[in-house]
Amino acid sequence: MSSTAPPSPSTPITAGVDLGGTKIQTAVLRNEEIVGSARVLTPQTGNPDDVIGAIVATVRTSLEAAGASETDLQGIGIGTPGEVDAKAGAVLLAANVPGFSDRVELGPLVSEQLAETQVTVGNDVNVGVLGEYKRGAGRPYKNLLGVWVGTGVGGGLILNGELHDGRGAAGEFGHMVVKPGGLLCSCGRRGCVEAYAGRVSMERRARHLVKRGQKTDLFQIMEKSGRTRLSSGVFARALEHGDKMATKLIDDAAWALGIAIASAQNLLDLEAIIVGGGLGDRLGQPFVDQIVEQMTPHLFVADKPPVVLRTELGDLSGAVGAAVLAGG
Amino acid sequence: MSSTAPPSPSTPITAGVDLGGTKIQTAVLRNEEIVGSARVLTPQTGNPDDVIGAIVATVRTSLEAAGASETDLQGIGIGTPGEVDAKAGAVLLAANVPGFSDRVELGPLVSEQLAETQVTVGNDVNVGVLGEYKRGAGRPYKNLLGVWVGTGVGGGLILNGELHDGRGAAGEFGHMVVKPGGLLCSCGRRGCVEAYAGRVSMERRARHLVKRGQKTDLFQIMEKSGRTRLSSGVFARALEHGDKMATKLIDDAAWALGIAIASAQNLLDLEAIIVGGGLGDRLGQPFVDQIVEQMTPHLFVADKPPVVLRTELGDLSGAVGAAVLAGG
Repeated sequence: MSSTAPPSPSTPITAGVDLGGTKIQTAVLRNEEIVGSARVLTPQTGNPDDVIGAIVATVRTSLEAAGASETDLQGIGIGTPGEVDAKAGAVLLAANVPGFSDRVELGPLVSEQLAETQVTVGNDVNVGVLGEYKRGAGRPYKNLLGVWVGTGVGGGLILNGELHDGRGAAGEFGHMVVKPGGLLCSCGRRGCVEAYAGRVSMERRARHLVKRGQKTDLFQIMEKSGRTRLSSGVFARALEHGDKMATKLIDDAAWALGIAIASAQNLLDLEAIIVGGGLGDRLGQPFVDQIVEQMTPHLFVADKPPVVLRTELGDLSGAVGAAVLAGG
Repeated sequence: MSSTAPPSPSTPITAGVDLGGTKIQTAVLRNEEIVGSARVLTPQTGNPDDVIGAIVATVRTSLEAAGASETDLQGIGIGTPGEVDAKAGAVLLAANVPGFSDRVELGPLVSEQLAETQVTVGNDVNVGVLGEYKRGAGRPYKNLLGVWVGTGVGGGLILNGELHDGRGAAGEFGHMVVKPGGLLCSCGRRGCVEAYAGRVSMERRARHLVKRGQKTDLFQIMEKSGRTRLSSGVFARALEHGDKMATKLIDDAAWALGIAIASAQNLLDLEAIIVGGGLGDRLGQPFVDQIVEQMTPHLFVADKPPVVLRTELGDLSGAVGAAVLAGG
């Protein structure tokens, strides 16, 4: 079929699902293009069946938008937090997805409701980085590090054109050490990148500073936005207002990210770094510029730095990458 | 030929050369076994021709020891400090090899004196790690990091069974940042691993501490040994005597190495770490144990640590790796 011919509804297509603690984003790809997408809030009932049901419904909505049906699906990919048993298509310990703190047979359960289509399950950050590598900002490169700054800080490595997952646990960029004995990280250790640049850690630090009498508009902005957490949008608005604490927290995040990226670069001599994730995407180019400023002084080969880029697919990186994982 | 048949002098063999600032070590391999080796001091005249001459003579001595001749050589490999132009077989900026601060056409110059045998040139640390990977402690693994602790701190990565050199400059493990704003490194930056664990940095720090009035036997031991530098042997003897400053310097080296190895491990999820180099080999298992102790608390996947090993080939790693580079 030539690229100008109208797609027939029977053209093989793939669906990708980005499963998160707050939302489920789905995209349907036909000939490497997004032809349908949908997003819903993740059910908070604590029953994994409700989450499975929401995934299935969101895939169906995306298929409708693409003018396609379940039987056209050649594969479904799912990016999920937690530990992945890729062979079984199961996920373990995805604590921030309600009902997913125990093992869930995610792939088989989704498959049986969607015409027994084959389901491939992968780590959410790896899948997002794969999306950017194959269909986004990473296309020109064969060696890159994706740094996903969100609730926590995740990483994904493409080396020689392949996702490097080591023995299954590679990419824990967020737990590279930038300050021995430094701030407490959510992993229980001290001085990790995530202790400075993860949204949850930053919020904990902000609450602590407020208790110690420091002023900030962060929590008023949060309440006005109807939020209960310091979301990426809350940080962005506080920065726009010149809020001092927000500025300091983001400066420190860029500092930690810059140092760890430089260390990774000195070790791996990569072509590109892609900064994504909820906070990374929301803060955009000014945040990337800050990270570059902090990274540069620590680069051993100063005249051949990596390019540092924003994502191209934004919050669709994960869903598109999941579809790519399924062959899309 | 069966493995029990006596090798004939015409069996194809390879030679490997480990070129250093103080010594040149050569090994000749036949059927993956070391059948000859030789070592000379690196000529200190400042004339690169003298260094080339010494390399050629040392290869010839090793060939004699192996009962072989130049025409049996199927290839020569050389591991060298400095920047390598692999295509041309040249080396640039190998400042600690006398006469090698400018570009030297190392491969062609050695080749023309050794029966026009093909010469392959590689980075010394990468070549040493390759030696351990193919013929030493790294044989059971496909993903490993070699940490070479000597004058400076170097690194070499084997990923998916291949040497990972990025755009030609990967493996600068010694310039991962372990303490932002920390000790001054020989690269001019602060807080690199090498600032704590490189022998030159440790000596600079020791001299500084002595000036500030701290006591140590390091320099007496150095003088008694007829040395002008704090060699690996000097550090080892001072440790045996319980010298406080030497103990503190080695503790700090293990601290920095442990943190950076943990960061690399969290990023790459490797199977093995091999600790080599002059100081690493000399201090041996107690030093490796110290490094493991410092690394472990920072591992994100604590229940699946990498194995941390000493080299098997010791100071022959580089020469054997160079022979492997040449097809041996």
